[in-house]
Amino acid sequence: MNGAQAQLTTLVDNGVDVCFANPGTSEMHFVAALDAVPQMRAVLTLFEGVATGAADGYARMADKPAAVLLHLGPGLGNGVANLHNARRAHTPMVVVVGDHATYHKKYDAPLESDIDSLAGTVSGWVRRTMHPGDIAADTTDAVAASRAGVVSTLILPADVSWAEDARAAPAAPAAEPPGVDDDAVRAALAALRSGAPTVILIGGDGTRNPGLAAAVRVAEATGAKVLCETFPTRLERGAGVPAVERLAYFAEAAQAQLAGTANLILAGATSPVSFFAYPGKPSDLVPAGCDVHALAQPAGAAAALEQLADELAPGVTAAVAELARPELPTGDLTAFAVAAVVGALLPENAIIVDESNTAGIGVAAATAGAPAHDVLTLTGGAIGYGIPAAVGAAIAAPGRPVLALQADGSAMYTISGLWTQAREHLDVTTVLFNNGAYDILRIELQRVGAMGADTPGPKAQDLLDLGRPTIDFVKIAEGMGVPARRVRTAEELAVALADAFTETGPHLIEAVIPSLAG
Amino acid sequence: MNGAQAQLTTLVDNGVDVCFANPGTSEMHFVAALDAVPQMRAVLTLFEGVATGAADGYARMADKPAAVLLHLGPGLGNGVANLHNARRAHTPMVVVVGDHATYHKKYDAPLESDIDSLAGTVSGWVRRTMHPGDIAADTTDAVAASRAGVVSTLILPADVSWAEDARAAPAAPAAEPPGVDDDAVRAALAALRSGAPTVILIGGDGTRNPGLAAAVRVAEATGAKVLCETFPTRLERGAGVPAVERLAYFAEAAQAQLAGTANLILAGATSPVSFFAYPGKPSDLVPAGCDVHALAQPAGAAAALEQLADELAPGVTAAVAELARPELPTGDLTAFAVAAVVGALLPENAIIVDESNTAGIGVAAATAGAPAHDVLTLTGGAIGYGIPAAVGAAIAAPGRPVLALQADGSAMYTISGLWTQAREHLDVTTVLFNNGAYDILRIELQRVGAMGADTPGPKAQDLLDLGRPTIDFVKIAEGMGVPARRVRTAEELAVALADAFTETGPHLIEAVIPSLAG
Repeated sequence: MNGAQAQLTTLVDNGVDVCFANPGTSEMHFVAALDAVPQMRAVLTLFEGVATGAADGYARMADKPAAVLLHLGPGLGNGVANLHNARRAHTPMVVVVGDHATYHKKYDAPLESDIDSLAGTVSGWVRRTMHPGDIAADTTDAVAASRAGVVSTLILPADVSWAEDARAAPAAPAAEPPGVDDDAVRAALAALRSGAPTVILIGGDGTRNPGLAAAVRVAEATGAKVLCETFPTRLERGAGVPAVERLAYFAEAAQAQLAGTANLILAGATSPVSFFAYPGKPSDLVPAGCDVHALAQPAGAAAALEQLADELAPGVTAAVAELARPELPTGDLTAFAVAAVVGALLPENAIIVDESNTAGIGVAAATAGAPAHDVLTLTGGAIGYGIPAAVGAAIAAPGRPVLALQADGSAMYTISGLWTQAREHLDVTTVLFNNGAYDILRIELQRVGAMGADTPGPKAQDLLDLGRPTIDFVKIAEGMGVPARRVRTAEELAVALADAFTETGPHLIEAVIPSLAG
Repeated sequence: MNGAQAQLTTLVDNGVDVCFANPGTSEMHFVAALDAVPQMRAVLTLFEGVATGAADGYARMADKPAAVLLHLGPGLGNGVANLHNARRAHTPMVVVVGDHATYHKKYDAPLESDIDSLAGTVSGWVRRTMHPGDIAADTTDAVAASRAGVVSTLILPADVSWAEDARAAPAAPAAEPPGVDDDAVRAALAALRSGAPTVILIGGDGTRNPGLAAAVRVAEATGAKVLCETFPTRLERGAGVPAVERLAYFAEAAQAQLAGTANLILAGATSPVSFFAYPGKPSDLVPAGCDVHALAQPAGAAAALEQLADELAPGVTAAVAELARPELPTGDLTAFAVAAVVGALLPENAIIVDESNTAGIGVAAATAGAPAHDVLTLTGGAIGYGIPAAVGAAIAAPGRPVLALQADGSAMYTISGLWTQAREHLDVTTVLFNNGAYDILRIELQRVGAMGADTPGPKAQDLLDLGRPTIDFVKIAEGMGVPARRVRTAEELAVALADAFTETGPHLIEAVIPSLAG
């Protein structure tokens, strides 16, 4: 078999059987090899950022990596933003970047560039396969490395791909789950037993049912407060799931949540810092004098929390959220009305992919008592994540409805992901919040002004305005094969949402709402 | 003034008065400063690849850099593909990447990443301004460095942007034009006088009227052959302009053009290599035994060619192309019929932005005798260049009609550039070749098969198919505010094209054509 066939076979043998692809000429042997390896599902995207975002969404729901096929340095560049999000989410992913043939690189052909440096900025593992005999072992290593929660990037020269003397490798043994750090557990126990005000900040694998239950049990037994990181990789919530509050996005609000904390226990989360710096405001959000205890990394947070719970709350059962939906609202749409409709109609076992940014302000409260669901969030702040991640989540969990809550500005970075949703007939319902602005930036500009800059003038305001011309997301979605409609009232949204959840395949609902920033 | 105001003032004082922007929170002070510096025109794009591609197209037509405003590492990542093209085009550009405040970086906030490494892969000059007192000098240096034909990337921490103790710098003196290398001229003269078969391969600034005329005069006087590099940055051509043949894209065809050459003179072009490597095919396209003479770099090619012409062809006038347009064709559209319609109707003084890829196969011949025009091409092979470059070209040359010849697959990488065309009411006519496929890859897959790989199977073929579902570019364009229509016959295209050239503002014409690969 040739190198590409050996690579595909090795990926499949190691459990990686979905590949999100945007290939070019240097990947033609990989593409040709797909027919020799029928177990590999190849999903075409029209832009690399859709491929990388889809692989992120896929892995969060499948708990295993997908492969991504990209074309040389520019293709990898187009995938960087969503690889950044994946890096912050600790998502396993195997990125294969096709490169020029080894002997061709010295000629500095037009597409030659420094792929290795580019890959290094977003990958936890990078290797370049130089010999066909190494392709299988390198691929096995890439999968194994990714399972620790990193992006593995394997650079595949075209001549390694087409060389005929390659062989597949046997599957690597499954890795041991990460152990619990006994010293860290002891320190956390001491803090929790101290009686001093303690916050457990959870993240990583601690934001699913077992970790949430353990954290809530500890809280119930000790009086500690549980907070979830601002942007969890995958948060389980809703009726029947222990409820936790999320750390707020804006620093002032997060500081209020953490005020008075004497002990901060980090269970899979990083120490809280302001998302951005602002003049005269602190970056570090840990209250003065608070002791910070690193209990666990993202992988292993649930296990460490369970050890705490076994020790501190052996007989305690975690309280769970009750089924409680908001009433269906009526009248003109607002961000809060959209949230209420979503809360009222969210189907069982849904996956919410959240890139609603400011427009989603009311969603968390409105869905707190909805049927149990997962929420995937924008972990790295690189917008253009929602539409692609919905693609991947739907492919990872074909029986589950995916609801993508999508801000208008962010949608335009990777809008072509709608086409892949149509092509794969995915059960994704996108609620597109159209407020005609980069509303978060309008708010930020006001904050900047409040912090001493001049009052923003018309040129500054204009640069955040998406309403000149108005973007018609219905036409754009239809242009990519996704049925779409526009709604301006809560009643219209309720009908549209119910219809979308009933029919198979993708739908887009453009919800026209006012700007929050006025 | 604050750092952002000092930077904007310095840019304007150095002649950089257009900024293509996609800002985020860390750039809010830059945005707020726009109202304090009215000479700076800020052009909003909905995706960073549109901003960088627009700046490339702008600089090619304006002969000076534009500024680009990007948001942290992910924003720069989204701009990398078109920065790669700009690097290959030797385009001057000043990229400002907003970063976290200097003191905030150590907290590894969610958007933190290695901007410097990322910038290094596409920039000829990179600096990070660490003190407000340096912002003006750093900005002046960035502009000066870019004028040598490179992307300058200046990383601007938020606290440097908002610091109040900054000052603008005086404008830097204009740089000397590059001199002519006398030794290189002597070697080229000897080759041209040797009587042996000689090819002059021109690129860089040699592909405009003066360089073309000089090269053609030398050819007429010596019997040498003139070829233009495959993907020139800006090629002047049409009636009244000396005509040159372009080096072919596929290696076999290029080898045929170069066969028998004893001396190859490089005037602003690099030595010809295959765009990609193929099994058993050479990468280096220079015939065996051919001497290669590097006459000039991209900047200075025209001057060197003129020196050759003065020496070898003092009384010779360069022949120019005569005005000769094809007849308007009739019947069903094909790639060649589109080309004939374009050739028949191209207006005076047009700028053609060419990302038509395979579909544009007939355009060069059909427009050879059209009124004089400029052609901007995909210099680095990173697709998604055409729609953004058309934005920049139209802003640089407001009185000239821009015709963007755009392949369907490539269009989807940066489709949101249409919205900026609408917002700025730019006179851009996009002819969108819709053949429903990555046709170049279908051809490449056939070539791969012909070179010994298995015959491509249905999975491989499916991965190059853009027809499932059909992309409706009319709806997509209208969704972004650009009037659009679909044409299926030559007659319909002629009417649509004439209308588009008559009306102000952007238009898109979706030309449905068959796939060349069958």
